[in-house]
Amino acid sequence: MNRRPHEAGQATREAEHGRCLADGIRPFHVMAILARAKALEASGRSIVHLEIGEPDFPTPEPVNAAATRFLSGGQVRYTPAAGLPELRERIGRYYAERYGTGVSPQRIFLTPGASGAFSLALAVALAPGRRVMLADPGYPCYSNFVHLYSGEPHAVPVRAAHDFHLDADLCRTHCGGEVPVAISASPSNPTGTVMRAAVLRELVQWFEAEQGILISDEIYHGLEYGGRPVSALEFGDHVFVVNSFSKYFGMTGWRLGWLVVPEAYAAAVERVAQNIFISAPTLSQYAALAAFSEACLAELERRRRAFEARRDFLWGELVKLGFGVPAPPSGAFYIYADCSAFTDDSAEFAARLLEQAGVAVTPGKDFGTQSPERYLRFAYTADIPVLQEAVERIRRFVGG
Amino acid sequence: MNRRPHEAGQATREAEHGRCLADGIRPFHVMAILARAKALEASGRSIVHLEIGEPDFPTPEPVNAAATRFLSGGQVRYTPAAGLPELRERIGRYYAERYGTGVSPQRIFLTPGASGAFSLALAVALAPGRRVMLADPGYPCYSNFVHLYSGEPHAVPVRAAHDFHLDADLCRTHCGGEVPVAISASPSNPTGTVMRAAVLRELVQWFEAEQGILISDEIYHGLEYGGRPVSALEFGDHVFVVNSFSKYFGMTGWRLGWLVVPEAYAAAVERVAQNIFISAPTLSQYAALAAFSEACLAELERRRRAFEARRDFLWGELVKLGFGVPAPPSGAFYIYADCSAFTDDSAEFAARLLEQAGVAVTPGKDFGTQSPERYLRFAYTADIPVLQEAVERIRRFVGG
Ligand SMILES: Cc1ncc(COP(=O)(O)O)c(C=O)c1O
Ligand SMILES: Cc1ncc(COP(=O)(O)O)c(C=O)c1O
Repeated sequence: MNRRPHEAGQATREAEHGRCLADGIRPFHVMAILARAKALEASGRSIVHLEIGEPDFPTPEPVNAAATRFLSGGQVRYTPAAGLPELRERIGRYYAERYGTGVSPQRIFLTPGASGAFSLALAVALAPGRRVMLADPGYPCYSNFVHLYSGEPHAVPVRAAHDFHLDADLCRTHCGGEVPVAISASPSNPTGTVMRAAVLRELVQWFEAEQGILISDEIYHGLEYGGRPVSALEFGDHVFVVNSFSKYFGMTGWRLGWLVVPEAYAAAVERVAQNIFISAPTLSQYAALAAFSEACLAELERRRRAFEARRDFLWGELVKLGFGVPAPPSGAFYIYADCSAFTDDSAEFAARLLEQAGVAVTPGKDFGTQSPERYLRFAYTADIPVLQEAVERIRRFVGG
Repeated sequence: MNRRPHEAGQATREAEHGRCLADGIRPFHVMAILARAKALEASGRSIVHLEIGEPDFPTPEPVNAAATRFLSGGQVRYTPAAGLPELRERIGRYYAERYGTGVSPQRIFLTPGASGAFSLALAVALAPGRRVMLADPGYPCYSNFVHLYSGEPHAVPVRAAHDFHLDADLCRTHCGGEVPVAISASPSNPTGTVMRAAVLRELVQWFEAEQGILISDEIYHGLEYGGRPVSALEFGDHVFVVNSFSKYFGMTGWRLGWLVVPEAYAAAVERVAQNIFISAPTLSQYAALAAFSEACLAELERRRRAFEARRDFLWGELVKLGFGVPAPPSGAFYIYADCSAFTDDSAEFAARLLEQAGVAVTPGKDFGTQSPERYLRFAYTADIPVLQEAVERIRRFVGG
């Protein structure tokens, strides 16, 4: 083996090594926005943050109280890799209570956030080179996860007229003759749109018929403003469902999510979890038991209504200002707004909006390649007075 | 595309899909031991657990107190992907205090356990098919991680005479003409052996000269019984170092570890972290700030001495019983004992030891393929009276 002189440095090393799995991962544009917003704030400017995909509400009190109680007595040891049996059980019952379809605890795995659930699901779904269909626009981490697990992300342009969602027809067209694998998400980030129940049913059933793998990201479930959420689990057992305590339950920093798997995959998923996580955070799991208490769910319902009021306000104002909202934002806390009345470059527009008006939003190009220059994502993770201020600033900025 | 009738079921689906990334992952044998031990306990039998790779000490009080304090006031939000700046800073100072070599906080990433640190390191180290050298025997998750990131684990048989560690010569022989990538671990799981400083220095320098990637797993640092720990970071900056709050700090269930990376990799590692974790558990990060307090470090030193006394006791007794301990167990909380005086099948021996004597240990085959049938791993994660009871039971079992 030839010695390579070290002076040649990083360039040589990278050439030698060629690609690494992380190569496909580009930074999020919103990180630059966030950094610039912080710098402006540090210099004394007032900034309204509508770029943040994190609920502004604190951890619900019953959850905090349960954590404090546990800390005063319990041991913070590894839990079983699949999670605390009583929490798996409780989540299984939650499906019965909320969706009318109980789920066996054996199919439920607690994970470090929904993020961890994707690692588990992709480890059993993928092999090198396997195609994964993803809605474009969509959550940017999906394709990066697929890169890391050496699959091939395949962007499927989704139409506003179809609520920006995948459906069985699109998957049939885009699967390239392979056994289909896809990640769908409803409510969607960045569009806030909810998939119609009939579309979801057909999607689940088509994947089942094709013996494919559908991963349904339901992390924004509970944050829906037009009827009860519908889970892919209502339409079949051959589906992977990702969920989390981060959004509806307001527990981002606790890093706890879950994955429901088809029974045939449970043993393999457990082995993966044992190896890559050992277990999800213990204290978070004990705390999360209290997230399903009546008191907590009542508080979450109040928050849901608060989000709904914000959504109503911001949606209305954006449309009045001249933005387009081509599909109803019926869930999550996002509005994906068409800004082509003002610009043909939403990223440049977002940068100027921050510099000149002090409003931070996320440009479309963080979410895909389908006309991203037309779109901005507004997150209503701030109270109505703050949203009013944002609207005023935007009105002045666009000269409305 | 042909429709495949669903009745064909799982077999067809697996054939269609062929391999998945998780295929290479076999269950740990210790899981069967653990399950059987629990079943025996449930039926009223007394079992001594020497199979558990988890400290029996609770979370240090100062850490618990910090967590409780934070819960009463702080918001449990996502932290930056790399971790809390003040904790990165504190860990950087810890390297200065303990190892005499400060580390820039920019190179330090907080992760969900050391487990999470491996995901980050391998994402930037690997591409499909890349070879990763691993000591055999070694921690079984390493090769499973490499499988998931579609690399090729390459077992390097390591000799008791070399303390069961990789060294530069072995890596030169085993790298197969490729740019070398390896994971080394000192103190080692399962052998408890510590790599000599000169060997570690040569290893680090050889990888640097070859522009290869060395990942040094230092999770058992602090639990050493013959002198201060020596970090790979003392011998160069072109090394990845994995560590964790799980073992020395007694914080397994908090799921917090860290990764130190060469500066050139920091940006890529941060992008990976943003995508696959978002952030490490927030409360654990705030709590961990207290892990470096004088009171906490004093408590950890008491625990280290307790582990050392257990080690002395168990090592001595095992040798008296006729087990071989071919390399000094100078760290972690494991003794890798040669049981060939009693059996030529350590797994069968472990199963009988559990059934007949009520002592649970881990068979060598969980750790590799190099004469695993000669070895058992004893974890001294129990107090001396419990170890005494174990020794008595083993004595009766082997008829000594
Ligand atoms: C659509 C979607 N899925 C998954 C996640 C991951 O969230 P977590 O890991 O906090 O559960 C997010 C976070 O923003 C998201 O927007
Ligand atoms: C050698 C070694 N490395 C890494 C780990 C992972 O530990 P954690 O993820 O809890 O930090 C373990 C756990 O047993 C281990 O033994």
